[in-house]
Amino acid sequence: MEDCLFCKIVNGEIPCDKIYEDEDFLAFLDISPMYYGHTLLVTKKHFKDISEVPFEILSKYLNIANLIAKALCKTLDVEDYNIRINKGKSAGQIIFHVHLHILPRMRGDACLNNFKYKDLEKKKLLSKIKENLI
Amino acid sequence: MEDCLFCKIVNGEIPCDKIYEDEDFLAFLDISPMYYGHTLLVTKKHFKDISEVPFEILSKYLNIANLIAKALCKTLDVEDYNIRINKGKSAGQIIFHVHLHILPRMRGDACLNNFKYKDLEKKKLLSKIKENLI
Repeated sequence: MEDCLFCKIVNGEIPCDKIYEDEDFLAFLDISPMYYGHTLLVTKKHFKDISEVPFEILSKYLNIANLIAKALCKTLDVEDYNIRINKGKSAGQIIFHVHLHILPRMRGDACLNNFKYKDLEKKKLLSKIKENLI
Repeated sequence: MEDCLFCKIVNGEIPCDKIYEDEDFLAFLDISPMYYGHTLLVTKKHFKDISEVPFEILSKYLNIANLIAKALCKTLDVEDYNIRINKGKSAGQIIFHVHLHILPRMRGDACLNNFKYKDLEKKKLLSKIKENLI
């Protein structure tokens, strides 16, 4: 879809820190992470929000999210994570192309504020996550 | 599983404000709602958390969640909702039987604090939600 940030990322017009890709989904690091390793899992096809995703793609969504979450946890040596989906503006959705947030969590952590990864750190992180994707 | 609150609810040992039931899932109103209409969707079989749910059941989870979310939204005349899954204590999981939170949202709402439904209000709410489940 024209003028959709995530469609541009899916099409390679805008770069991303890619973690995972298959025929239906693309996962990449959030550029403004709420927690270290915060990852977005988007559908390749444009759907405005979760309510529009058809049965077949929706069926795979949590399975892929779990796969990525486990790789993130192994990489960061943590055990816990949140999965969050916001449908609509009042629910906190900002980009209107469906996406699922995967947030690795650790005891006593706090929400990050304006955090940016350093280049080398990000390169190592992405490489480790990909190794840990089973 | 013995001593599991949600297993007791699934087995009918502890009552709940039931919204939906099929062979794999049960949905009911959260007794301490974060937002009006806050609903929990649990698997009937005991799994400690989302990481343990097998492919087949996980494949249905978001489809059922969307179905319920749409019925909640229609009932409450709102359009938006959050879907949240907390895996593990550090991620805010309190009951260790997998559950998905469905939170209807409206513009400018705020998280509820110690809110309890009145009996008649709850009865009407449940009846309307069930009517709106397509």
